[in-house]
Amino acid sequence: MEKKKILILNGPNLNLLGTREPGVYGDIPFDTFLEELRGRHPGAIIEYYQSNHEGALIDKIHEAGFSRDGIVLNAGGYTHTSVALADAVSAVPAPVIEVHVSNTARRETFRHRSFLTAACRGVIAGLGLASYELAVIAIENEW
Amino acid sequence: MEKKKILILNGPNLNLLGTREPGVYGDIPFDTFLEELRGRHPGAIIEYYQSNHEGALIDKIHEAGFSRDGIVLNAGGYTHTSVALADAVSAVPAPVIEVHVSNTARRETFRHRSFLTAACRGVIAGLGLASYELAVIAIENEW
Amino acid sequence: MEKKKILILNGPNLNLLGTREPGVYGDIPFDTFLEELRGRHPGAIIEYYQSNHEGALIDKIHEAGFSRDGIVLNAGGYTHTSVALADAVSAVPAPVIEVHVSNTARRETFRHRSFLTAACRGVIAGLGLASYELAVIAIENEW
Amino acid sequence: MEKKKILILNGPNLNLLGTREPGVYGDIPFDTFLEELRGRHPGAIIEYYQSNHEGALIDKIHEAGFSRDGIVLNAGGYTHTSVALADAVSAVPAPVIEVHVSNTARRETFRHRSFLTAACRGVIAGLGLASYELAVIAIENEW
Amino acid sequence: MEKKKILILNGPNLNLLGTREPGVYGDIPFDTFLEELRGRHPGAIIEYYQSNHEGALIDKIHEAGFSRDGIVLNAGGYTHTSVALADAVSAVPAPVIEVHVSNTARRETFRHRSFLTAACRGVIAGLGLASYELAVIAIENEW
Amino acid sequence: MEKKKILILNGPNLNLLGTREPGVYGDIPFDTFLEELRGRHPGAIIEYYQSNHEGALIDKIHEAGFSRDGIVLNAGGYTHTSVALADAVSAVPAPVIEVHVSNTARRETFRHRSFLTAACRGVIAGLGLASYELAVIAIENEW
Amino acid sequence: MEKKKILILNGPNLNLLGTREPGVYGDIPFDTFLEELRGRHPGAIIEYYQSNHEGALIDKIHEAGFSRDGIVLNAGGYTHTSVALADAVSAVPAPVIEVHVSNTARRETFRHRSFLTAACRGVIAGLGLASYELAVIAIENEW
Amino acid sequence: MEKKKILILNGPNLNLLGTREPGVYGDIPFDTFLEELRGRHPGAIIEYYQSNHEGALIDKIHEAGFSRDGIVLNAGGYTHTSVALADAVSAVPAPVIEVHVSNTARRETFRHRSFLTAACRGVIAGLGLASYELAVIAIENEW
Amino acid sequence: MEKKKILILNGPNLNLLGTREPGVYGDIPFDTFLEELRGRHPGAIIEYYQSNHEGALIDKIHEAGFSRDGIVLNAGGYTHTSVALADAVSAVPAPVIEVHVSNTARRETFRHRSFLTAACRGVIAGLGLASYELAVIAIENEW
Amino acid sequence: MEKKKILILNGPNLNLLGTREPGVYGDIPFDTFLEELRGRHPGAIIEYYQSNHEGALIDKIHEAGFSRDGIVLNAGGYTHTSVALADAVSAVPAPVIEVHVSNTARRETFRHRSFLTAACRGVIAGLGLASYELAVIAIENEW
Amino acid sequence: MEKKKILILNGPNLNLLGTREPGVYGDIPFDTFLEELRGRHPGAIIEYYQSNHEGALIDKIHEAGFSRDGIVLNAGGYTHTSVALADAVSAVPAPVIEVHVSNTARRETFRHRSFLTAACRGVIAGLGLASYELAVIAIENEW
Amino acid sequence: MEKKKILILNGPNLNLLGTREPGVYGDIPFDTFLEELRGRHPGAIIEYYQSNHEGALIDKIHEAGFSRDGIVLNAGGYTHTSVALADAVSAVPAPVIEVHVSNTARRETFRHRSFLTAACRGVIAGLGLASYELAVIAIENEW
Repeated sequence: MEKKKILILNGPNLNLLGTREPGVYGDIPFDTFLEELRGRHPGAIIEYYQSNHEGALIDKIHEAGFSRDGIVLNAGGYTHTSVALADAVSAVPAPVIEVHVSNTARRETFRHRSFLTAACRGVIAGLGLASYELAVIAIENEW
Repeated sequence: MEKKKILILNGPNLNLLGTREPGVYGDIPFDTFLEELRGRHPGAIIEYYQSNHEGALIDKIHEAGFSRDGIVLNAGGYTHTSVALADAVSAVPAPVIEVHVSNTARRETFRHRSFLTAACRGVIAGLGLASYELAVIAIENEW
Repeated sequence: MEKKKILILNGPNLNLLGTREPGVYGDIPFDTFLEELRGRHPGAIIEYYQSNHEGALIDKIHEAGFSRDGIVLNAGGYTHTSVALADAVSAVPAPVIEVHVSNTARRETFRHRSFLTAACRGVIAGLGLASYELAVIAIENEW
Repeated sequence: MEKKKILILNGPNLNLLGTREPGVYGDIPFDTFLEELRGRHPGAIIEYYQSNHEGALIDKIHEAGFSRDGIVLNAGGYTHTSVALADAVSAVPAPVIEVHVSNTARRETFRHRSFLTAACRGVIAGLGLASYELAVIAIENEW
Repeated sequence: MEKKKILILNGPNLNLLGTREPGVYGDIPFDTFLEELRGRHPGAIIEYYQSNHEGALIDKIHEAGFSRDGIVLNAGGYTHTSVALADAVSAVPAPVIEVHVSNTARRETFRHRSFLTAACRGVIAGLGLASYELAVIAIENEW
Repeated sequence: MEKKKILILNGPNLNLLGTREPGVYGDIPFDTFLEELRGRHPGAIIEYYQSNHEGALIDKIHEAGFSRDGIVLNAGGYTHTSVALADAVSAVPAPVIEVHVSNTARRETFRHRSFLTAACRGVIAGLGLASYELAVIAIENEW
Repeated sequence: MEKKKILILNGPNLNLLGTREPGVYGDIPFDTFLEELRGRHPGAIIEYYQSNHEGALIDKIHEAGFSRDGIVLNAGGYTHTSVALADAVSAVPAPVIEVHVSNTARRETFRHRSFLTAACRGVIAGLGLASYELAVIAIENEW
Repeated sequence: MEKKKILILNGPNLNLLGTREPGVYGDIPFDTFLEELRGRHPGAIIEYYQSNHEGALIDKIHEAGFSRDGIVLNAGGYTHTSVALADAVSAVPAPVIEVHVSNTARRETFRHRSFLTAACRGVIAGLGLASYELAVIAIENEW
Repeated sequence: MEKKKILILNGPNLNLLGTREPGVYGDIPFDTFLEELRGRHPGAIIEYYQSNHEGALIDKIHEAGFSRDGIVLNAGGYTHTSVALADAVSAVPAPVIEVHVSNTARRETFRHRSFLTAACRGVIAGLGLASYELAVIAIENEW
Repeated sequence: MEKKKILILNGPNLNLLGTREPGVYGDIPFDTFLEELRGRHPGAIIEYYQSNHEGALIDKIHEAGFSRDGIVLNAGGYTHTSVALADAVSAVPAPVIEVHVSNTARRETFRHRSFLTAACRGVIAGLGLASYELAVIAIENEW
Repeated sequence: MEKKKILILNGPNLNLLGTREPGVYGDIPFDTFLEELRGRHPGAIIEYYQSNHEGALIDKIHEAGFSRDGIVLNAGGYTHTSVALADAVSAVPAPVIEVHVSNTARRETFRHRSFLTAACRGVIAGLGLASYELAVIAIENEW
Repeated sequence: MEKKKILILNGPNLNLLGTREPGVYGDIPFDTFLEELRGRHPGAIIEYYQSNHEGALIDKIHEAGFSRDGIVLNAGGYTHTSVALADAVSAVPAPVIEVHVSNTARRETFRHRSFLTAACRGVIAGLGLASYELAVIAIENEW
């Protein structure tokens, strides 16, 4: 069986995961987690890309969305404000799963609305970094 | 290692899964799925309860929420209207994960609001019956 | 020609019809009306069920909705708050007609919204107990 | 017993019934239906008037509302925008029953609000052309 | 001094003044009032026009608004729904004063918004038929 | 015939009339206008009181509202924010007429809502200082 | 003097009082409080009923509302979502006083709206378990 | 045991209690009630202050809030509009209980919002003048 | 090639184009423009109709919408208030292009909503009288 | 006569035109269309730029807006969310015409609001790729 | 160079600065700060006035606004509710700078709206007592 | 004493300051102002960065926010739309002060909401370029 090609795509400020507001996001650097994740999922090729630029995230979705088996997307603050990113998700054939580290429903009102969810296949939120891993499992299994 | 005790709790109309609006919810009866799920997760004791009664769901959360390792909750239509159910989730120590078969963000506006999410540990939606399985995995792993 | 099997399903507080707020709902007990209705419609088998329990109403819709020719539903206060009941209506093949004794548009703002109407085949409101009879006529005639 | 005098009053675009958006409104011309209706209700004198002019509908309500036994009013698009028409209904002694062919609650949000309902005696919607017939029955019976 | 030419322009349902909802609008026919008004204001030529047609009211404003000294406008139900009528008022040089017999702020919420007021010179409401007379006085005096 | 006792009650910032924002409120000092007004209405005893204090306006309404024939009230900015002032108007038997110099409907959105109107007998707005005079005429004539 | 018959009716999750979120609701079990309350009010017969089922609460109001001297109702989460419960309160002659342990105005926005208050005689909130006792005192004294 | 020092603080228009809108507020003058209240609560020193001035109420809260055992506050119309008064309540250590004679939830929409409740310890409404007495009892008992 | 038959349909107050608010709408009479337009588009038969009557506009759409190649519709103030006109557009097979002389997005908030756009093929706004010409070009070319 | 210099500026995801959601946007690649457009408009120099980066679009408007004769702007998803882009349009002297391929009024509610329209000279929407051509015509003719 | 005359005007509850909610407002009494401020700004005459009375603040603005070089205004709770105070600011020629000790955007939603800002020259908030000093610097420098 | 390191960070379109809409933003180029500012504050090292790219602004905040003594941020149009930028501010330890040249409360409604303010230490607006200088003073003084 061929290995699944999966892109994990992180949006703005997620380069600071492990540093930024640890009370909300935990204190494990994303790199450490990524290494462990790849170790636990040898049957998948897990690429990683992070950018603070909305346009760069759209470019990446265009690039990966026609050639990978799935995208795990944490768009950070753009989740709540970007129609353009949602349109990019709708424009590509690969399934995209929206993930969030924190439980956004417990936070400010403006974080309760996601422009992305309706464009994505599904959403996983509130389970810390495990939100990413569950999304990877879903794509690996073609769920 | 002790087996994890997990309750899957289904709310109103989910007794008709596999029958009701198959375009939205798929055509696999929940029983069939449950059997397979238990087969794939022998390390967990997966209990199941369904009721169309809001009060019965609350009673069950009170009962299971002090003694199980986690609850996977699909509250169906009560998701969008029940403060009482959310209060029950907040009142018990067990982690509760909200799940949905369909991508509720693509449906009617009144389905975009969940009273439950802020009370639950996290939410998994839109991935069909796999939403349940991912929640089981999360509880099994104490994620 | 076979007799039509019709369920009249009354929701919360409608057990008090004839007693409760007669200025709004009139002073004829529902039993008296039901007897007369059956007398005027000998070609139909008119069943009756009332409950104050949202879950019991859902259970009944599941039961009757696959075997009767139509349901006449006055969901009382649940009309304005129950997604679960609307989902039950959508889940069954029998046509359901929403009825109201009073003209809800003349009452409090929260009574102007019905979660049920979009799920039902149609709605008849404001014509007193005759709202039920018109719905029975519609189902009898397969209108 | 004297025959009931009933006016069926159709508003804008309802001259195209049977032609216009048949998926929504059906494909039976209103004239055909009217003839059948009169045949089924020989005990009533059923007048018919249609206009695309809001003012003409108001004029007609003023004229008929003091001399007929009831008015069956489908105000089409004016339902959702006309305070003036609602005021005309309130100004006359004859009972007016609002009818709609389609189930307006399933359509665009702006069709969910009716200025007329609170001014009318009641409302019958979603039952196709039978909505008219049920209203005629209600007026015939002085329900 | 030349006599002031004043048009009193009444909108929908105001032909029934004195008849319609006397608890709200009083029981004096408008004709009786008009005769008295002309008697009390011999220095003004007071024309009168009433129509239930929004378009006819606009036509009349176009006609009178370039040649009279002022218009007293009670647009009835169109007050709350007609942008077109407000545009007509803005399009003519004659001052237009909006009047209402009843105190609209005490009535339904949809009567609290007037599209006309911002286009008119001013508004006089709640003083019964005297609202018209005060407007006539204002135009006579070029206030 | 006894002279009518009328209180003109001006609220906050109206002590600056003639000085403040002349583009909006004109440049005639209120005192000059008041003198002329009294000259034109010798049959009325016209008292005047102005305060920038909401409480002082309420005190004055309590004092005058049981002994005068009417109150002409321009509550300035309190119009849009004071429930207490509206309650004072409702609490006294004298008719109160709300007046405004400017056409508030043409100004900021927060000036479109008046808490007072529903409590007052009527409202006259947008006619400059003549708004006061028309209100005086209405009270003089017991309109 | 006859003893007053009073029903204390507790809604969803209030069976966990003393256990659930003690920071919000305190740590005294309701049973302990109830015993003390009865001790302090020997002149009243204080019945107690708790249910997590909306329908059961309605049934109980129907039963007690025609035969007791008053009902003290803490409807928990149903306070904010149940029209049916409010209708039950309106349908019975006994005075019903709404109580809350916590100050709901300090909590989530959705707890600021009560469907019950307008149907109840009054409301007492924020005073801990003493809210119940004050309601009992009010009913005892027929205040 | 030392006597409790309690301030009853009444806001705008409550000087007219017993006179003003008796259908809403009853016809007992507050002085009469106060005398009886003091008679029934000899163990408390009950001071009384009323003002129509928002600023005077704030001054009084500052004065009493550091030296009394509790304040019973009926802020009348300021309840719904005054952030400043709520801030005064938050700024002092004495417990403040908000009271209302009428059931504000049954009245105009703008009376449904209280800026005070979240700043006060609790609220008692709808029980007529007994609302004050229950608040006095709560403070006396340090509930 | 057959000439395209195009109807330009102007709504309320557009008979005053060139006269009315020239700062907003320009000072060229529509007739002058129409002549030039016909000169520049000899390959099209350009009919013109204007009415201030909503009903007349609907009648015209019914008449032209089954026989012309396209309609250029400037519905003036009805744009923002007329569901009936939008329904007329939906009811006919001819493509209808909505046009506006001014840039409505720069004007009052109530002009930002068009009921027509969703029913029309497209919209052209803000380009002065050229908005009409561009629509004519689009219809001529069957774009 | 000098050739007009026109920039067509396409925003996010419009690089996929012809590929992305062909049901909504058609299946003609933008390059093909551009070539044809240039062929049909030899009197204009039509530049083209596309970017998924909001900042790059702003940079381009700054660059072109001081030196070209007009800009045809389809900002894609940024239309509905970008104040910064609208500010860029306002900051430059060249006329900018907003265009859309699809009829945005028929799509999701969040696509009904454009931040750009008020800053642009006008808007052309719903006419497929012809929307661009009409805008080019308008700029060519200095309409 | 003449000394600048500056009024610092503090609204309700700000007499308690240093005492009230020190977590929000700090623990330095305003008098101490004022003395230091005057010491650091010998080139300015800094007057100080505080009142809990909205009317007294308006009176003071009228008095100082025609004779001082600037006003530093912290209107406390009136910021969010007072149109009258904003009107007073608009009515005087002196520049008024709105200041806040706390960052109001982090607090309750009702504190996010200021009626004053649009009437003031500018606003400085969130910088503790330094907000006042920065405003003084701005007025001193005629910035 | 060590010099304070301060970054002034300007967002979209602020490269055109002095050129763009001088009625709103003034006509002094930012470079000229910056030079003067540095001259007046020799005790601070004032860095400057401007970008039209939201992502570049976030990158810069990440870079400077861990090493500078403070950031003066004018995010232009992103102020009103960017959650991502606000998150960047929250993620770094340096104090950030939001500044605006114009008084945003006097402009379009969408400019009244800032996503940034709650994340920043404070805000200074409406004082022209002096807003920047006051922020520099605040950071220099560690206010």
